Parts: sequence; C-alpha cells; structure tokens
Amino acid sequence: MHKVLITSVPFGVKDRRPLEILESSSIDYEINKLGRKLDEEELLSMIEDVSVLIAGTEPITKRVLEQAKNLKLISRIGIGLDNVDLHTAKKLGVKVSYTPDAPAPAVSELTIGLMISLMRSIQIANLKMHQGNWNRFFGKRFSHLTIGIIGIGRIGKRVIRHLSGFDCREILVNDLIEKNDTLFPGQLKWVDKETIYKKCDIISLHLPLNNKTNNMIGSEQIELMKNGVMLINTSRGGIINENDLYHGLNSGKVGSAAIDVFEEEPYKGELSLLDNCLITSHMGSMTEDCRSRMEIEATEEAARYITGKKLEYEVPIEEYFNT
Amino acid sequence: MHKVLITSVPFGVKDRRPLEILESSSIDYEINKLGRKLDEEELLSMIEDVSVLIAGTEPITKRVLEQAKNLKLISRIGIGLDNVDLHTAKKLGVKVSYTPDAPAPAVSELTIGLMISLMRSIQIANLKMHQGNWNRFFGKRFSHLTIGIIGIGRIGKRVIRHLSGFDCREILVNDLIEKNDTLFPGQLKWVDKETIYKKCDIISLHLPLNNKTNNMIGSEQIELMKNGVMLINTSRGGIINENDLYHGLNSGKVGSAAIDVFEEEPYKGELSLLDNCLITSHMGSMTEDCRSRMEIEATEEAARYITGKKLEYEVPIEEYFNT
Repeated sequence: MHKVLITSVPFGVKDRRPLEILESSSIDYEINKLGRKLDEEELLSMIEDVSVLIAGTEPITKRVLEQAKNLKLISRIGIGLDNVDLHTAKKLGVKVSYTPDAPAPAVSELTIGLMISLMRSIQIANLKMHQGNWNRFFGKRFSHLTIGIIGIGRIGKRVIRHLSGFDCREILVNDLIEKNDTLFPGQLKWVDKETIYKKCDIISLHLPLNNKTNNMIGSEQIELMKNGVMLINTSRGGIINENDLYHGLNSGKVGSAAIDVFEEEPYKGELSLLDNCLITSHMGSMTEDCRSRMEIEATEEAARYITGKKLEYEVPIEEYFNT
Repeated sequence: MHKVLITSVPFGVKDRRPLEILESSSIDYEINKLGRKLDEEELLSMIEDVSVLIAGTEPITKRVLEQAKNLKLISRIGIGLDNVDLHTAKKLGVKVSYTPDAPAPAVSELTIGLMISLMRSIQIANLKMHQGNWNRFFGKRFSHLTIGIIGIGRIGKRVIRHLSGFDCREILVNDLIEKNDTLFPGQLKWVDKETIYKKCDIISLHLPLNNKTNNMIGSEQIELMKNGVMLINTSRGGIINENDLYHGLNSGKVGSAAIDVFEEEPYKGELSLLDNCLITSHMGSMTEDCRSRMEIEATEEAARYITGKKLEYEVPIEEYFNT
C-alpha cells in the first residue's frame, strides 16, 4: 500500500485535476497541512512511512532520506533540484523525477515584465504614487541597452524569443557549458561571463543552483559591472550573494534589481528595505496554467510509479554531477 | 525678434542638444521656471510676448491664445493635442506642429511592462514584500488571455508587434475609424468596442483624447466587461472615467488596472488608495532617447519657423475635426 505525501503548497487549489488523478487510482495521499514550505525538522516528522513524495523546494537532505525508510520516488513539482540530496537518493535507491518543461513559459514571461519594470522604474513610480508623490522617472529602451542572459536552457531561450518582438540592440549570452559561437546569429552573441558583467546594462540569470553557480555573483563580479546595472534573478536564491547585492544596491553601483528567489524562503531580509529592489515571492512558475501543468505532470509520474508503469521524467544522470 | 517659451519640463536636462539648436541660431528662449506643468493662469502670466511656444500638456485655451498677441507657432513636444484649442489657434492664425512619431517606441514598451505586471501581480507582490509580507499570487499567461487593443495607430501597432514574441491566444482590435477586416491576419481580429469589452481579459487604450473618446469607458462599459478584467491606459486621462474606475476596482469587477495618465496631473486622486491599481506618473514617453527625440524635433520645428524655413510637422487638418 503506497502512501503519497504532497509537500508543495498550494496544491490542487486552482485546478483539482492532480487530486483527481490520485483519487481515480484510489491512491492514498496527504497534503502538507502547514500550508507553507517545510523545514528539515518538519519534513522529518512527516516522512517516515511515505513511499512517494510529491515535492516542492523543501530540504530533502541525507537525514530526511535516511529517515524515509519506505521512500521509493521523489516527484519534484518544478525543475530545480538544489533541494534534493541526489547522491544519497541514488545510494538509497530512491528514484527522482521532475517537470523540467512546465515552468519555463511562466518564468520567461515574468522575466520580461521584471525587465521592463526595472528599465522604466514602474515599481518605484507605483510605490511613490501610493504614498501620494508624483515623481517622473527617466527610463531606457531595449534598443539602447545591451542585455546579458546567463543560462540559455528552456527558460533563457524563451526570454530571448520574447525579446525578438522588441528592437534589442545586442544580446550577450553565456551558459555553464560552452556553446559553439556560430549557433548565435545576428544580435545574439556568445561571450564569457566576465564580458557579460562588464558590458551589459541588464543581466538576467536562468541557471540551476549547484556547485558551479552558488555565489556566482558577489561583490567581486558586481565591481566589474557597469554603474547602474540592472540585475534580474528568477532562477534560484544563492546564485547572487544577497548581502553583496544589498550593498551594491545601497551604494547605487547596482541601479536596480528584480529578485524573485532567495536563499531562504519565505524571505525576510533587508533587500525589502530598498526601493530600488523589486521583490516578488518566488512566483516565477506561479501562473494558473503552468502550476497546473507542473502539478499534473508530477502527479502523473507518481501515479505511473504506483501503478507499475515506466517513469517518463526521471532526472537525467548529468544532473547528478553538478551537486 | 522672436521669443521662445518652453513650458514642458524637464527640458534639455538629460540631453542638451535641443538647447544647442536654439543657441546656435542665437534664438532667445526661456524655460518654465516653476518646474512643473502650468495651469491656465500661470500660462496666461507668461505668454504675452511669446512668439513661439514649445509646449507640453498645459492648457492652451481660448483665453491663453487671445492673450498671446505675438504667438505664431505652437510646437508640441509629443503627440496629444487635447490641451490645445485648435480651432481658436486656426482662427487667430497660430500654426500648430507636433512630434507624432517620437513617443511611440517608449509608450509601447511601457505598455508591455504594465501588462505583465498586472498579469503576474508584480506590483502587489512588491508592495507586500516591502511591508514584510510573503504572499504568492497566481498569475496568467499570454497564451490563456484574450487581449483587446483599442487604437491601432503608431503606438497600438507597436504593442501588437511586441506581443508577437509571446504566444498570444487572440488579439482583438478596434479603432476610432473602422479598418477593413481583411487587414488583420491570424490571431488579430477586428471587432467592435462592445465585443472588446465583453470578451477581453486585458484591454489597453492607445487613443487620442477628443470628443469621441472623452469618458469612453465608464460604469456602463465596465459593467459589460469580464469579472477581473485588467485595464491599461497609457494614452490620455479622461478616456476612462476615473471615478467609475475607482468603483470598479474597489468592487473587484475590474481585477486590476495600470494607469499612467490622468484627468488632472500631477494626480492626487483616490486611485492611489487601491493596491490593485498600478499607478505611474505620465511616464509613457519618458525614456531618455524618446524624450530627447521629442525635444529635438519640437525645437527643430521652432527653429525652422524662426529662420524662415518650411515647417515639417504641422498638425494635419483631420485633427481639427475631432476636438
């Protein structure tokens, strides 16, 4: 008899279909009753007899995995795997699946919205107007900016496609694995990260959090950047050092930033003291359609396992080498 | 001897070129010293001996024009003519020029930013995060929305082009003058205004303010709209009735709105009491490049007049029939 624990919340709220998938196969499930992201202790207290975990971004550590004696499958709602100790899972024979395609459309559209917000100071004007102050801010347009995209996987590529509807001057790209320069025609140009830091007016990150990206952008990299640079992170907290970003924004070296992801969530840090930091609450994948698709795909994978079918979205072996 | 008054501020601040145009032709000029939009009385007190007015959106009324005994040319920085009594100008032999192309690229990019902000509640999440509250909002994506564009001139067309980089489900369009249906291929469809009100999830206005558009959207039109509709106005205040919009937003009938333009500016009204109203301070054309281009074009036109050259951007006669 399988027991499914769903830790990612909200779940099945806007769209009941993922719950119906479980119910139609008479699968026993429980949803995280705390209604928020769990910490390690909380997860430890719930995991003991669980065989299939439909997981969010809570810490699925060695301790958790060793406690989870019955665990056979972790089905991640989403793409990031930084919260899962993949090596221990492998050693203990726990399979790991994810939903790599589902979040991309929602994250890439949000990124463009954040970009234009920063370019035009929309969020600052709105804050001021709600305080009763009429301040007009000069903005920038795409055709006068060099844009840097670090990470050109599922999300970064979509961001670049959205930008095709604007007249961008130049888009510089980079990724963790070097791509052949000739793949990038026209305004798109492969350069190293240092060149992106030095030349770009906007830099947007679309990377996983792993041992290559943790603290990738700190005070040293910020120092290389143009004065007034705009930074966007919709990927994972921890890639930009939050403390260094705070100092960069506070000094004006970083003109503004839009940050959707944090080292610790829910975020309670001091970036929220700064008007020039646009902060959202890890909402990258939070559109009704993408969230539904992620929940359905993760649940279908769980149901496949339980009903003895072949898994379709097991995490590929390359992912195990980056943690 | 000509005397030039520049009422639109800031002017020549980010880019000195418009001032250099005047100085290189030894043209005497004065810039509005109050540093903000003038009211009728203020303009009356400054206009008496002015021969060329490089104008913003201040009220250039019958009274002002009758007081301005030496006025020969009004060179508007921008495209809207709702603040100029065109008929009296014509009667008194005052020429009127404008810069119709310059603002479009900046307004259309801002519009996309406002659209995604509303779709994803970026501005509300940011407001909450700055108050220390982590709230995650479900958003919508372009591929699940019907978008209505009313006004498909210079700006509306660019908005549609920017949208081509996204996967829009359907774009319904309308304008003051009926366009042939066959001009609109694919997802683009010409419909009447009532259909836009009834069917669209987002409605964005790109119209001049004139006798056909004043109060075009009030409680009656809002009543026709979908519950939770998102409204965007980056064109002119007065097209959406502000009081009716307030009630629509307050009741939740209108899900959210992004308003950049107001009946009276600087705006001090009660829309700023509502979190679901994203408010900016008439910043549509406020990018460095567009603002420079507008100032340069309006100043070049003034210099053309003063140095006896032919005007290039006189307001076409059709504009005189809408006021």
